[in-house]
Amino acid sequence: VNYPIIGVFDSGFGGLTVLRALEEQIPQAQFLYIGDTARLPYGSKSRTTIARYAVSSARFLVDQGAQFLVIACNTASALALDAIRASVPVPVLGVIEPGAERARANSATKDVLVLATSATVESQAYSQACHDRGLRAHEKACPLLVPLVEEGWIDHSVTRQVISIYMEELEREARAADLCPDTLVLGCTHYPLLRGLMEQAVKPGIRVIDSAEATAAEAIHCFALEGERGDIPAVRSHFYATDSVEKFRRLGSQFLARELDEVRLVDLGG
Amino acid sequence: VNYPIIGVFDSGFGGLTVLRALEEQIPQAQFLYIGDTARLPYGSKSRTTIARYAVSSARFLVDQGAQFLVIACNTASALALDAIRASVPVPVLGVIEPGAERARANSATKDVLVLATSATVESQAYSQACHDRGLRAHEKACPLLVPLVEEGWIDHSVTRQVISIYMEELEREARAADLCPDTLVLGCTHYPLLRGLMEQAVKPGIRVIDSAEATAAEAIHCFALEGERGDIPAVRSHFYATDSVEKFRRLGSQFLARELDEVRLVDLGG
Repeated sequence: VNYPIIGVFDSGFGGLTVLRALEEQIPQAQFLYIGDTARLPYGSKSRTTIARYAVSSARFLVDQGAQFLVIACNTASALALDAIRASVPVPVLGVIEPGAERARANSATKDVLVLATSATVESQAYSQACHDRGLRAHEKACPLLVPLVEEGWIDHSVTRQVISIYMEELEREARAADLCPDTLVLGCTHYPLLRGLMEQAVKPGIRVIDSAEATAAEAIHCFALEGERGDIPAVRSHFYATDSVEKFRRLGSQFLARELDEVRLVDLGG
Repeated sequence: VNYPIIGVFDSGFGGLTVLRALEEQIPQAQFLYIGDTARLPYGSKSRTTIARYAVSSARFLVDQGAQFLVIACNTASALALDAIRASVPVPVLGVIEPGAERARANSATKDVLVLATSATVESQAYSQACHDRGLRAHEKACPLLVPLVEEGWIDHSVTRQVISIYMEELEREARAADLCPDTLVLGCTHYPLLRGLMEQAVKPGIRVIDSAEATAAEAIHCFALEGERGDIPAVRSHFYATDSVEKFRRLGSQFLARELDEVRLVDLGG
């Protein structure tokens, strides 16, 4: 084949928002997506276990022909990126650094807010990545947002209220920490589906950064795909899941904003 | 010792609502509670894996001296009760049969509604247990209720709205299925914390059955503890968890409606 093949890995469906951004921004590539749905959620597992799971998915994608890997999972990006890089012979990009880098490029005040899951917040990966770039970050866990998205309540009055409650708490906490934020990073792959509601809920002057989009843009540079043109792949993306392919197709189409082609079941072992 | 020792098992904290009911209804017993928090949630795992996990927790409780076991976890009750019974030499009670049995005793129309998690609904365990008792059951998955309880939004306007939305859908589905329900079973160990809101949300004439309470009442008969009197245990309940004991104490007190005594960390292996 004469086009780049990019492997995309997540513990579930959320990473499909990253795939969506990749498909939009890198039209000449083919994608292999694996959702390790049998072993999700990763958030409650130990670093060792997460690394073992993530490495097995990464190796699977490389075995299928992936020349580059995007780790479209905040938990695995936070806890297993080094382990993955050490175990596969291709370039690997996570979702956290690109989000933090875009926040740095955007922020004038150098004060940044991050919304994420409890596991991502506890890992402090965004705070660290922001700190490395001279930013002060305040992170907040929003445990209700993933269930609301998975329930399909994307444009729903309840979701609007929950976001407004989280946002008020976030702004109160930021004031108490003496921050003057002008940037909000969506640090969970489910949150791009709530981007519109988030933009309505933030105070004027705060820009919302979608880490899925930032990751896709960064992938072009990181994998040196600028200007690369070749064949157009016949199939845009291939999908693999480690549990119910039917459920994957049904839930996945919401994240990808289109119907999924065939999803293949894969057994990665225990 | 001269008092009954009852082991109580759940994948997490929810089973503490069952422990609370047991403590209230069986004052002469001591309890050993284990939350397999390192491996939760069980809902997304296969029957084989759930049985293996549940059996290791059940054996642990028996090794610690439990003479009776309550499986205070809907998923394990639905999928692993036989495996547990086959692997320990003590009487074992799950949470599903007592809930269904109390529904039978209450219902005049013989039409019953059940609210539960997606995993419990997919197992069809309540439908089967109701069917065995001559009841028709309509089950509904309510994926937002566990996260709302775990977020601590117990008496919150958002939770009230979510319950009212689920309840409207449930009643519409029941009408479409030509049912005339007079009983609503709370088929998840988190839901007793929402019992007040549920009772406000149901139509007049529908009684809410708390399966935690029903299980505690059934335990007295099942374990033949009527009239048994002996020593009063010095410590009411001992707590074990397979992950962060600090988090267990913090979240657990909400479910138990009191502070937890010491929580001990246990390693049950992979």
